[in-house]
Amino acid sequence: MQTGPQPADFADVRATNLAVVLRHLRMNAPCSRADIAAATGLNKATVSSLVADLIERRLVRETGMTERRIGRPATMLVLDGSPYAAVGMEVNADYMTVVAVDLAGRKLLSWRRAFAGSSANPGQAAASIAALAKRAVGKVEKEGRRTLGLTVGVPGLVGADGIVRLAPNLRWHDVDLRSALRKALGDPPYPIEVENDANLAVLAEQRYGGFAETGNLIYLTGEIGIGAGIISEGRLMRGERGFAGEFGHLLVDPSGPVCGCGRRGCLEALAGVGALVARTLPDAATSSPTELEPEVEEVVRRAKAGDPKVLDALAETGKHLGHGVATVANLLNPEVVVLGGYFVQLAPWLIPAAEAELRARSIAPEAGGTRLVASTLELGAAATGGAARVLDTIDSGRLPTP
Amino acid sequence: MQTGPQPADFADVRATNLAVVLRHLRMNAPCSRADIAAATGLNKATVSSLVADLIERRLVRETGMTERRIGRPATMLVLDGSPYAAVGMEVNADYMTVVAVDLAGRKLLSWRRAFAGSSANPGQAAASIAALAKRAVGKVEKEGRRTLGLTVGVPGLVGADGIVRLAPNLRWHDVDLRSALRKALGDPPYPIEVENDANLAVLAEQRYGGFAETGNLIYLTGEIGIGAGIISEGRLMRGERGFAGEFGHLLVDPSGPVCGCGRRGCLEALAGVGALVARTLPDAATSSPTELEPEVEEVVRRAKAGDPKVLDALAETGKHLGHGVATVANLLNPEVVVLGGYFVQLAPWLIPAAEAELRARSIAPEAGGTRLVASTLELGAAATGGAARVLDTIDSGRLPTP
Repeated sequence: MQTGPQPADFADVRATNLAVVLRHLRMNAPCSRADIAAATGLNKATVSSLVADLIERRLVRETGMTERRIGRPATMLVLDGSPYAAVGMEVNADYMTVVAVDLAGRKLLSWRRAFAGSSANPGQAAASIAALAKRAVGKVEKEGRRTLGLTVGVPGLVGADGIVRLAPNLRWHDVDLRSALRKALGDPPYPIEVENDANLAVLAEQRYGGFAETGNLIYLTGEIGIGAGIISEGRLMRGERGFAGEFGHLLVDPSGPVCGCGRRGCLEALAGVGALVARTLPDAATSSPTELEPEVEEVVRRAKAGDPKVLDALAETGKHLGHGVATVANLLNPEVVVLGGYFVQLAPWLIPAAEAELRARSIAPEAGGTRLVASTLELGAAATGGAARVLDTIDSGRLPTP
Repeated sequence: MQTGPQPADFADVRATNLAVVLRHLRMNAPCSRADIAAATGLNKATVSSLVADLIERRLVRETGMTERRIGRPATMLVLDGSPYAAVGMEVNADYMTVVAVDLAGRKLLSWRRAFAGSSANPGQAAASIAALAKRAVGKVEKEGRRTLGLTVGVPGLVGADGIVRLAPNLRWHDVDLRSALRKALGDPPYPIEVENDANLAVLAEQRYGGFAETGNLIYLTGEIGIGAGIISEGRLMRGERGFAGEFGHLLVDPSGPVCGCGRRGCLEALAGVGALVARTLPDAATSSPTELEPEVEEVVRRAKAGDPKVLDALAETGKHLGHGVATVANLLNPEVVVLGGYFVQLAPWLIPAAEAELRARSIAPEAGGTRLVASTLELGAAATGGAARVLDTIDSGRLPTP
């Protein structure tokens, strides 16, 4: 309820200060207790007590290394990568991905499996997700690591309670995926979270993409649908019920085609990857989204070959996309809008048309400085973001018990 | 670069902790040092040192009152309203407002002056703004108060550097209002800020309106233009360059009327108060925005009288407004969208049509819980917000020197 600097976790200043130390180490390790005190403004006694807590929890360790200085040498501290693993998953209409990283962000595993998400019922889907999660958790735990948490990204509306309210491309409605996974995984000791896929992907961009220092960042998923993950002043915007980022149903053309949502002329009905494929490859069967990947590759092949029909369709798609980007740019004035998913492969043809439309429709000069770029993360960014989400809860001071 | 709890002012934990104490007192005073320690998680020694600092700066004072408890009685603390004043102003095309409040939020003065903003040049405007500011500051200082700061709201794009990039209804372009005011006021000891009017109005709603506990809040200005002030998780969203909230130029109808911005079918060309007046009172001269207030009153009079043409126009305006609200609701999932300015008087007729459109265009069930309400603050909310902005900088731990 205030706008000034504040610990978000208002009631727990110690958790906030633990977080300050942990994040300082993530960015600056190796460093000494004195370095941390100097950089954070915490006094040395407080830093020593916080560091002791982090060492006891095996999140931080002392290195043999010391720093030369007048007086006795200072012991250097680093994050301890070995004892823990954070697991993230992404569920799509055509595939699922699982990623595990250690506390220092090193990737421990990254698996991708075909998955008939659009035909499986929620119960079958939960079983498949749990089975893949179990194998990933089993692997990292066989290496002697403790699982800090599991976060699963789904393309749809996810309530703060972890219930998937609506996921059109999975044909889900009010699915309590978190409880189903907790049950299927035998009520494990680590937290399980379910989150919108675009929200997780933007966390991955922030932590592992080219935008670690970018406070105002938007990620657009480039699948059949178009979702937005929004980071404002370094914080993920989930909205009051966690439904923020429903970007694909922005009205772009009242006389446009009917959208999956039943409305006419929505952004994703005009600029979604499914719509692009239908426009460029009318001959191809676009019924099943599992067809999408080879079809996108075919679009890229024809674009490279200079097929004028495909180039026109890409330019039109980019123009509609730019209209949508201009709308968020006017409303939120982000520094960067990142095109993700299948848009990455298509970006060389989409971005020029999109940028022209962005500039034409922006009220602020030079589009308020908003840049439009392609993601540097491969498909499955949301899974990486799921793991990042787990590390964020640690970084925010909610530490695992010793 | 993190999304978890963190002091926004990362480098200065003490400022953050001062802010924690100050805000706790604002919400819970009178209370004892022990109460503060218990509620905030700060240890008692730290609280005592922070409180001593606040007392030295005359932001907090001890009351004679003590709390009965085992052991020695605890001295109670309250915010000290007497020594300081925060001043806010709002500049519009037809009037300007100045408001002064004390640290505890009590209103010390609230003046409104007619002002031909659309015809004055920036130099004349700055002189008029400075003259009114000088009189307000003079009055509070004659009462022995020290001015903590002055924040001026203008309807337009304001850079983080205080330069007004663009204010169409004032016909301003790249006006360094902050420097002009600092010069005209003889380089005063208090900070001067210039901010977008919608941003200030939403701060006023958060602090003095019905929404102090509302973390996700959007305020829409109801003037000739329609601007948005956005609060996300309790924090004002300014965007990368401070240009967030340009809501009035959302495309609503490609075949709609030409907007002041030169584009066609923008929200404010269809749902702005100027457009409504033109639609309902084609006979009235709508050339000068100084005419707007009596004309809005005439629209209200005719609506109350049941004039079918006016009721239809209000319903159409509400429908377009609802389209715009649905767009921000899908993107940001706010808890409340507040209609401000002239929309307040028109709300009984606008809201039913707007709510129907909001529900029809929202992806989330029940519009994601987003409520559409009329502001409880009168015209000039941005001036009140300007004063709130000054108090926010104090609350955030940037304290005045003793």
